[in-house]
Amino acid sequence: MYSLATVQKYCKSTKGLTEFSSRYVSKTATKTVSEFEYDAPSMKTAVPGPKSQELLRQLGEIQNVGAIHFFCNYEESRGNYLVDVDGNRMLDVYTQISSIPIGYNHPALIKVMTNPNNVSAFVNRPALGILPPENFPEKLFESLLSIAPSGMNRVQTMACGSCSNENAFKSMFIWYRNKERGYASPSEQEVGTCMINQSPGCPDLSILSFMGAFHGRTMGCLATTHSKAIHKLDIPSFDWPIAPFPKLQYPLEEFVRENAQEEARCLEEVEDLIVKWRQKRKPVAGIVIEPIQAEGGDNHASPDFFIKLRNIARKHGCAFHVDEVQTGGGTTGKFWAHEHWGLDDPADIVSFSKKLLTGGYYHRDELQPDKPYRIFNTWMGDPSKNLFLSEVLNVIRRENLLEEVTRSGKALLQGLYSLQTQYPHILSRARGQGTFCAIDACSDATRDSIMLKARNKGLFMGSCGEKTIRFRPALVFKEYHVHQLLNILNDILAEHK
Amino acid sequence: MYSLATVQKYCKSTKGLTEFSSRYVSKTATKTVSEFEYDAPSMKTAVPGPKSQELLRQLGEIQNVGAIHFFCNYEESRGNYLVDVDGNRMLDVYTQISSIPIGYNHPALIKVMTNPNNVSAFVNRPALGILPPENFPEKLFESLLSIAPSGMNRVQTMACGSCSNENAFKSMFIWYRNKERGYASPSEQEVGTCMINQSPGCPDLSILSFMGAFHGRTMGCLATTHSKAIHKLDIPSFDWPIAPFPKLQYPLEEFVRENAQEEARCLEEVEDLIVKWRQKRKPVAGIVIEPIQAEGGDNHASPDFFIKLRNIARKHGCAFHVDEVQTGGGTTGKFWAHEHWGLDDPADIVSFSKKLLTGGYYHRDELQPDKPYRIFNTWMGDPSKNLFLSEVLNVIRRENLLEEVTRSGKALLQGLYSLQTQYPHILSRARGQGTFCAIDACSDATRDSIMLKARNKGLFMGSCGEKTIRFRPALVFKEYHVHQLLNILNDILAEHK
Repeated sequence: MYSLATVQKYCKSTKGLTEFSSRYVSKTATKTVSEFEYDAPSMKTAVPGPKSQELLRQLGEIQNVGAIHFFCNYEESRGNYLVDVDGNRMLDVYTQISSIPIGYNHPALIKVMTNPNNVSAFVNRPALGILPPENFPEKLFESLLSIAPSGMNRVQTMACGSCSNENAFKSMFIWYRNKERGYASPSEQEVGTCMINQSPGCPDLSILSFMGAFHGRTMGCLATTHSKAIHKLDIPSFDWPIAPFPKLQYPLEEFVRENAQEEARCLEEVEDLIVKWRQKRKPVAGIVIEPIQAEGGDNHASPDFFIKLRNIARKHGCAFHVDEVQTGGGTTGKFWAHEHWGLDDPADIVSFSKKLLTGGYYHRDELQPDKPYRIFNTWMGDPSKNLFLSEVLNVIRRENLLEEVTRSGKALLQGLYSLQTQYPHILSRARGQGTFCAIDACSDATRDSIMLKARNKGLFMGSCGEKTIRFRPALVFKEYHVHQLLNILNDILAEHK
Repeated sequence: MYSLATVQKYCKSTKGLTEFSSRYVSKTATKTVSEFEYDAPSMKTAVPGPKSQELLRQLGEIQNVGAIHFFCNYEESRGNYLVDVDGNRMLDVYTQISSIPIGYNHPALIKVMTNPNNVSAFVNRPALGILPPENFPEKLFESLLSIAPSGMNRVQTMACGSCSNENAFKSMFIWYRNKERGYASPSEQEVGTCMINQSPGCPDLSILSFMGAFHGRTMGCLATTHSKAIHKLDIPSFDWPIAPFPKLQYPLEEFVRENAQEEARCLEEVEDLIVKWRQKRKPVAGIVIEPIQAEGGDNHASPDFFIKLRNIARKHGCAFHVDEVQTGGGTTGKFWAHEHWGLDDPADIVSFSKKLLTGGYYHRDELQPDKPYRIFNTWMGDPSKNLFLSEVLNVIRRENLLEEVTRSGKALLQGLYSLQTQYPHILSRARGQGTFCAIDACSDATRDSIMLKARNKGLFMGSCGEKTIRFRPALVFKEYHVHQLLNILNDILAEHK
């Protein structure tokens, strides 16, 4: 696949690999990781260490640093292991908020950088909407279109997740109004009023979202985000309908009847809201939903729920937008989480970012704006990210990473089930699909304490919702790493009062 | 500065330089361009040529291609010359919507790519808000903070111009509400209502913008954008106040009295709107303005206007946000266009993107959010863009490019004055600062016809407003290139009926 020489050359060109440590190597796990990786965490200081603290002080003069965990040595990081500036090496199952697809410094990505044919794509960032490079269609076919969700032939790249969702919403509004006016030209009144933010040019349309959802933080996206107050406080918003997201009991297999009732209740509410907002003269142009609510606390729903929701959207003439910014890219064991649903009638829009390295959205033909410059900005994405994505997809295929994710995910979820059985006063509600797993602590304080202790033992995890730990490893996370993770968690829980 | 060997190596590694042509070389201009550049346009086909047309067909299956001019061969492009896939080489004075700071394939930027110490920054894109790389504070000091507008010690990077303005708006809203509640903690009611998009948690605050403004296309930005209907039609918006931007007569020196009256009228309207919106209980938290309205048609105003506007903002307790996304980066002869005003009382926020390669905004201490995660997203910019920016700044300093811009800008504006004197039935209102110049045609049809003819003669320009041609060359645009540009325009105008 890639030569050890390439890796060694790169390592030499930076600072060389730190010595391997075996302190936390599980005795039961078989090691199958690639040569380019370390084999275990290795801790030198408490985290953040003295170097991180000094850098925090420096950066604090420029920015609010309250969210910063520590400073990283990305040159020394490899595969699943993130190295910090104090020489601490941690097993990283948060991966930059779920945005590193195949681990740190993957040799295949380093090769992209060192290929002279790629230099121009990095140095000359084009305005893709007006002057694309020669290989742009080819690269789109080779990368994003080769993994397009079923029913989607069209894709628009964007720079980040928020921009992707903002523009997806705009496409739904444009589509909805074009339907309403029978695809005729806009009236003079519409053209005039839109310039001063007034209806009918800027119509009172809405997007239906779900309580607990996260779709980004720009003002359109933020009106559909309802996961934490700190995201929304003090920012003006739109009067758009918000439906309850099912609050299911886990494991899903054990509460089929109860969960089906809960989902039916939520779907009924969705239809009520659509009718109410139509009566309020703020009709719902689109419904946006995550396959698994991520920031909101890893909330799952059944394929049946999503299929019925899609049918409700169709019935009421609303577009159906699946936000795969966090769930997309293979982490659930399929490339797109919504492929687990078995939809006959595809979604209208599927948005992505994070592990895809570029933002963007797929859409059905009907959702393409009728005119140029309606969906537009200066850069419209970044072709250098498409180059990396092509190579990530090659690695996923060559190394059968979706199968690996399924296998590791099973081991991880089984391990979490065991831990919650062993420590029922601390842990509950283990859940997941692929390695996209989570477990709840008994309180937010306990959750935070477990996470800090784990970090000091070389395991870096993320949180979400009120008291949830979320696991978002890279696709190169193997059973071997699962065992490392479980060993560390087990040690902490055994000591926990 | 950089070795010819580096350049030759790169050229060899792609496809080699096309033969130089001298067809359009001006006899009067002295050639001072760097070795890495071509010396003139060279046209092989009409534009778009057959290869571009075939690629347009291919891309048309994936996206709306109505805004695409032609496909580019970025490998072969150099300095001020953009080469298309049909081998046409054009003098580019639009530079990817004003976003290429020092021309195509600048050797200094190629060196950034080939430096092994930089590989990691490209391959491992971090979540900057939680896990920044070791050199992040250093790189910020070396790049963005070394060019900070006066009074600004803090900077927040973002991925693009829209995200920069959206987050700048959010900072102003947060600042305004914190003032209102006396920096106390938010009430339970605020925390509760913000989750469902309702006041007081999501308050009815507004941003005052100007007719003709362009601040981006995400939904918050779009509510302050009023340049073209196609940007806004069908997208829901906010009821925010929109003031008239002065409609000045050019050249400014000849209409001082008339223009001062017009500016006074607009400022009076601004104050009226602030009072009205306070009475409507949608108080103005911030005022956003471009130093030169770019997309809206290159509309200028005097330093006096901006100084008085800043005072009005201060008087009414509104934040003052200068949007330098298009004007920033040296193109007006100063690094920031608003430095021409001589403000004693600095702005509160200055946003940027495009030529800075990364998006973001500077702000005063008071505008920093009080808590982490209030201004936040996954990536918060891209450190690999900061690396390029550092090098761009080195080149600007080493090559005295701001002086060059001032010199070339004078030559360009003088040339445009001559053309409008010579062709008064076709051209009028030549205006500009540095190389940020524009001229109006007698109609949109004439403007479009001139631009197409120029393109076929090897001069690629941009348009803005209703009938304006805008000039947005890179900072390496010399007097030599000005003469090429004027020669081509003169040929076209002489033939024009």
